[in-house]
This record gives sequence, C-alpha cells and structure tokens, in this order.
Amino acid sequence: MPPLRGFLRSSATSNDPLKRHRTVTDPVLVPGLAGIPAAKSSISFIDGSAGILAYRGHRIETLAEHSNFEETCFLILEGRLPNREELQTLRSDLASRRGIADSVVQTLGSLPKNGHPMNGLQVGLATFGMTRPKVDVKDPASVREAVLCLIAATPTIIATLERLRRGEDYLAPPADANTAGAFLHMLNGEAPSAIAERTLDCCLVLHAEHTMNASTFAARVVASTEAGPYTVASSAVGALYGPLHGGANERVLEALESIGGAVNVPDWYAQKRASGGKVMGFGHRVYKTKDPRAHTIQRLAGELFEAHGSTPIYDTALALEKAVVEDLGDKGIHPNVDFFSGIVYQKLGIPTDVFTPIFALARMVGWMAHYEEQHQDNRIFRPAQIYTGAHDAPWVALEDR
Amino acid sequence: MPPLRGFLRSSATSNDPLKRHRTVTDPVLVPGLAGIPAAKSSISFIDGSAGILAYRGHRIETLAEHSNFEETCFLILEGRLPNREELQTLRSDLASRRGIADSVVQTLGSLPKNGHPMNGLQVGLATFGMTRPKVDVKDPASVREAVLCLIAATPTIIATLERLRRGEDYLAPPADANTAGAFLHMLNGEAPSAIAERTLDCCLVLHAEHTMNASTFAARVVASTEAGPYTVASSAVGALYGPLHGGANERVLEALESIGGAVNVPDWYAQKRASGGKVMGFGHRVYKTKDPRAHTIQRLAGELFEAHGSTPIYDTALALEKAVVEDLGDKGIHPNVDFFSGIVYQKLGIPTDVFTPIFALARMVGWMAHYEEQHQDNRIFRPAQIYTGAHDAPWVALEDR
Repeated sequence: MPPLRGFLRSSATSNDPLKRHRTVTDPVLVPGLAGIPAAKSSISFIDGSAGILAYRGHRIETLAEHSNFEETCFLILEGRLPNREELQTLRSDLASRRGIADSVVQTLGSLPKNGHPMNGLQVGLATFGMTRPKVDVKDPASVREAVLCLIAATPTIIATLERLRRGEDYLAPPADANTAGAFLHMLNGEAPSAIAERTLDCCLVLHAEHTMNASTFAARVVASTEAGPYTVASSAVGALYGPLHGGANERVLEALESIGGAVNVPDWYAQKRASGGKVMGFGHRVYKTKDPRAHTIQRLAGELFEAHGSTPIYDTALALEKAVVEDLGDKGIHPNVDFFSGIVYQKLGIPTDVFTPIFALARMVGWMAHYEEQHQDNRIFRPAQIYTGAHDAPWVALEDR
Repeated sequence: MPPLRGFLRSSATSNDPLKRHRTVTDPVLVPGLAGIPAAKSSISFIDGSAGILAYRGHRIETLAEHSNFEETCFLILEGRLPNREELQTLRSDLASRRGIADSVVQTLGSLPKNGHPMNGLQVGLATFGMTRPKVDVKDPASVREAVLCLIAATPTIIATLERLRRGEDYLAPPADANTAGAFLHMLNGEAPSAIAERTLDCCLVLHAEHTMNASTFAARVVASTEAGPYTVASSAVGALYGPLHGGANERVLEALESIGGAVNVPDWYAQKRASGGKVMGFGHRVYKTKDPRAHTIQRLAGELFEAHGSTPIYDTALALEKAVVEDLGDKGIHPNVDFFSGIVYQKLGIPTDVFTPIFALARMVGWMAHYEEQHQDNRIFRPAQIYTGAHDAPWVALEDR
C-alpha cells in the first residue's frame, strides 16, 4: 500500500484507484485530525466503545487498585513494572529532585497574585528549565534527567505558587514523601492523612496518560522541533489550560455549587432537560460507555467523605448522578472522571483553580513519555493546509487605496 | 467523496474502493503529517517548486519592496491592504501598547542571566498575559485586543530581557517609533540609523508568516483548546525554540565564523564536499528552487554593509555563496533566508542568541492570524495514534517481580 503522503501528492493520471480518487487538488480536511494517526505509540490504549483505558497494557482499574503514582511513572516511562529495588530508586530519584532554586521561587513570587495558576505553571516550568543544565536532546540520559526533574518539581512549583499567593513562604519539600504526600504537605503546611494522600495518589494514577489528546499532541509537535523537555512541558501546559481540555472538573464544581443543595436537584435537572442544556461531568468525547476512571474515583470519593464527613456539595453530586443515570444511563450517559474529581480535590483542601495544575502534575509523566517516544523516530511536524485565499492580488499604492 | 475521517474508521465490508483499501485496522502513519491538511487557511501560500511565498495573495518580493511591517500586519490580520487612515490607526494602536507592567520587568529581571532568551520570551509572554485583562476567546474584539498587545509588546519583552541581562535598566519604548525602530532603540539605547531600521523592518516582513510550519501548527493545536492568545503565543515560542525550526541563522553565523575568513572558503568548502557534510544556510525543506526571501535579504545585506562598512564574516559569506552556487546552483541549491539574516542581525548590533527571538517577534503576527482563523471554525485537535504496545499485560505483585 502506498503511504498516504504520496497518495495526497499524487497526480491524477495514476492507475491506482486510491490515487485516482484523491489528488493534490482535492485533499480533504479532517477537522481536529480526528482519526488521522499522528504517531505510533506503545504508551497507552483506549477503546472508547468498550470503556477501556490501559497504560502499557495494564488496565486503569487494576493500576488504580494495586499501583501508585511512582510505580505508574516507572511503568509509563519504561514500559514495564519495576521490581522493588527499581521502584525504590525512582522514589529516591524523585524525592531528591523536588526542590526548586531560590531564583525560581523569586520569579514565582513576582507574578501577579490574581493570575491563574496554569499561567503561573507555564511560567514556572520554563523558568525552572532555565536553572537546569542544558539538555542534549540526542542523549537519552540527559533527557531522562530532565524528565525526572520535571515530574519531581512540578508539584513543588504548583504548591509554591499557591503558598506565595496566600502570602506564605516557600516550604521546602519533605524529604521522604511520595509525590501526592509531598504536594499536599507543601500545599497545606502539614503532612496529609493517609486517606487524603492515598486519594490524591490514585487521582494522579488515573490522570497520568490518555493517548493523543490535545496537550499530548501539542507536546509531540513542540518536541519534534528538538525543543528541550522543560520548554515542551511549558507549551503543553498552555494546551491543557484551554477550557475545552483541562478545567472540566472546575466547571462541574461551579455547576454543583449553583444548584444549592441536594433537595434542589430534581427541579434543577428537569429544567435543564427541558431547556436542552448540558450537564457538566457526564459523558465523554472518547468513551461511549462509562469512563473507566469514573468508577474508581467515585469509590475513592465515597471512602474519603465517609472518613472525613460529607458535604452539601457531595450530597448534591450523588443526587445529580442518580437523576441523570436513571434518566439516561441506558443511553450510555454516566459520570466521567471530572464529575467526582473536583469534589474530591475540594475536600482535600485544594482551591478550585489549582485543579487543572494537578491534572498537569499527573499528566507530566504522559507528556514526557511521549517526548521520549517521539525522539525514538522523530520527524518535525509540518502538515499541509488547504489554501482558500487569493492569488496574485494587485499591489495598489497607499495613496490610491 | 467520503471524508477521510469516516474513511479511516470504515469497516472492511464497504464496496467503496477507498474504503476497501484502508480500514481501521491498517491506518497509515505519515511522519510529521507531511501532506496531510491540518486546516483551511487564507493567510499565506507557498509553492515550493515555483519559489513562491505570498501573504493574502501578495508576493513576498512585492511586500519586501513596497510594504513595511505594520502594513504587513494589517494585511495578514485583515486580509487586505489598509488605507492611509487604517494604517495610521494600527501604528498608533501598536505604539500605545508597547509598554509592559513593572511586575513583568521584575519577573524578567529575576530570570537566570545565563538562560536562553527564547526561554525568557516564553516566560515573558505568559507573564505579560497575567497582567492583561482576561480574554474572552469567543469575542473577536477581546481576542484582537490581546493580539495587538502581543504584537506591540513582544519587541519590548525581548529588548528588556537583553537590557537586564547586560545589567541595564528597563527602557520604556519610544512614543512614535515603528516596530523595528522601537525595538532597535530599546535594545541599543539610541534611535537606529534609517538604513538599520529599514533593514530590520524588511526582515520582519519576510518572517511574518509561512503557512503551517511547526510553531504555527503548535499555535493552532493549543488555540483549539480555547486557550487564550498569550498562552498560545508562549507555547508557540517553545516550538520555535527547537533547533530544527528557529535558530538556523544562529548556526549559519557560527559556521561562517569557524571558517575564519574569505580566503579559507575554497579549502573549507572542498573539504566539506569531500566529507559529505552539510553546509548551513543553503537549500530549504519547502523551497525546491531559490527561497523567495533570500534574494531580498541578500540585497538588503549588500546595502547595509555598503553603508556601514563590510566585515570579514560578510566577505566570507559572499565567498561561500559563490563557491556553493557555482558548484550546485544548477541543482537548485541556493542560499536560503537564514544564510544572510544572521549576518545582517549581527551588523545591527543584535547578539546571536537574540536572532530567534526576533524571528518570534515577526512571526507573532502569523501565529495570531492563525489563532483568529482557527476560531472561525474551531475543533479541538485530537488525532489518532497507531498503538504498537501490549494488551492485557498480567499484573504481578511487587514481591514477585
């Protein structure tokens, strides 16, 4: 079979039926490149119809139950599960790389306090890179060192942004904590409860990777220019900041708060249905059945709220889920991962506008795995366009216009 | 004709010959998406075989001779040439938006002095955005305001990064200067000569737009998430920083300096040819004949060096061009735009590592035109992948690994 490239560039005189049907004069635009392969990848797999998400062949439900974020990082980066010694080495490697230079703290402190922390993170990652040794993109060891620094220090950058915004000082990361524990400790100034740490850890596992979404694709496009990992991470954060990508759980929480309590759910939902409005947090572009991450996070939320006490917003969420699933469950409409994650993050003491930075914290490992994979067989992205504009426009002097 | 999307997702049972040949089980990866349309666009047009580059139907040679950067900005953003009043309005709009807040200067001043200014620019653009009102991506007027701010203030951010690095203070932009003049004034602390300003102005025209290159494509991918213009600009700078994209003129200059004088060119070139090495600054991935921008920049270089005196490196460049074109000119190998631009920038007093930021300064208008165009009919980019990894990997407990 001829490659698609030659096929699109072919002349109309070919006898190949594929070539006869498409020539350079009639390329077809596929909006969003949906269905067009942009890379070969062995990192993760989604079957939206069957509700499957797997990292390196391991189902997300299994990882959520048996694994943890550090082990999942090893799996995603190395393609296999670590043994005990390898896992311990990765834990130490991350713990020893969590700190950020004073100059980075100073830069973060200079940012406007009313700015969004995703902008702060975009700044912070690029700034952090400026304090690190230059990466040799052709040297896998040099790249991996930067990758570890990024996974390790992103929680610190996010927690520091939040601390400085609240008028508190930089708090150095705790020496022995895992990623979730270190982040919550820095954010709240004290070690988290075991269940709080375990809940966030599991949320990080659930969000670590998700095939060729917009930010991961952006990461691969930027990586293809041989830009370094810090630069790419900052650019990918820009994509995740877009409200069509990250930020859905933020809007779920806003919607739940606007309902004003579980007793209002039946009326609110009936009105929403009648007006054809969208209910945030249900259904997913990729999953045509239940989002495989939703079940886990719903169970986690149950445990967390049982241990630490329920809240009106959690009760509202349970009532809304019941109403929607009774009405539309048989049409495949179920809560997605964003429906419960915002409620969980709020319960962990995380401000609403830090939800998307946590998504970035988790997804950093996915972006970096794609960075490394892209460089195994790199070609710079330079797609075509379908030109719809003028040719040979006449030049008219300014005084005659 | 069926859209490519349905075509790639089709079952193998179709009678359509296109569908019979490609099914979801055998999608074809086109490295770099070469030849695959990623957007419909009326902004610019390239015919690489004929050596044509045109913005909105106007050939680059015409624009280089008759236009200027502000007029070209209007053309690229609006799709037509401005009349005198419209041009004057754009000039004032840009001049009044060149300043940056004290807090941005402070952030730029906190960055490591040995960092690359492209990282500084990535930081600076995201930081600048944090000081500006939030953009409503659905409101073209709100977006355009941000676009003007970005085109106006990018020169200020770049010049300020350079001034602070040299230990100088922020210099507020001159009130009445055009983009090229304001930038050189801020950079060097004095108004530039007419020919210096005109030379840079023309270089900005030549670099303002170039269809679907990697940074422009990255800008569209990030824009498709509905991220705001400042965020997108910062992400696009990340892509341009990659050595396979921006930075070629920097490496041309390094190569020319390493030759050590025009008299060494014949021996150096003979050795390069014998060893099969690449000569930087000749040929272009897109242009199969002479880069249409190269002729203009070569003429500009001639005028600039005649007015301000030649340098050994310019003489070396002329000797190398002669050697290469005599040898390979009939095979279509000619200098590209990068061959002379670095020499010109150096003569204008611009440090080598600020060449790529100037590329970003010029390309900002192209990125922003693509931003606005993407939002005329947006769909988030989420391409497919060809999964090459494992399925159903068995879970083995840590103690058994």
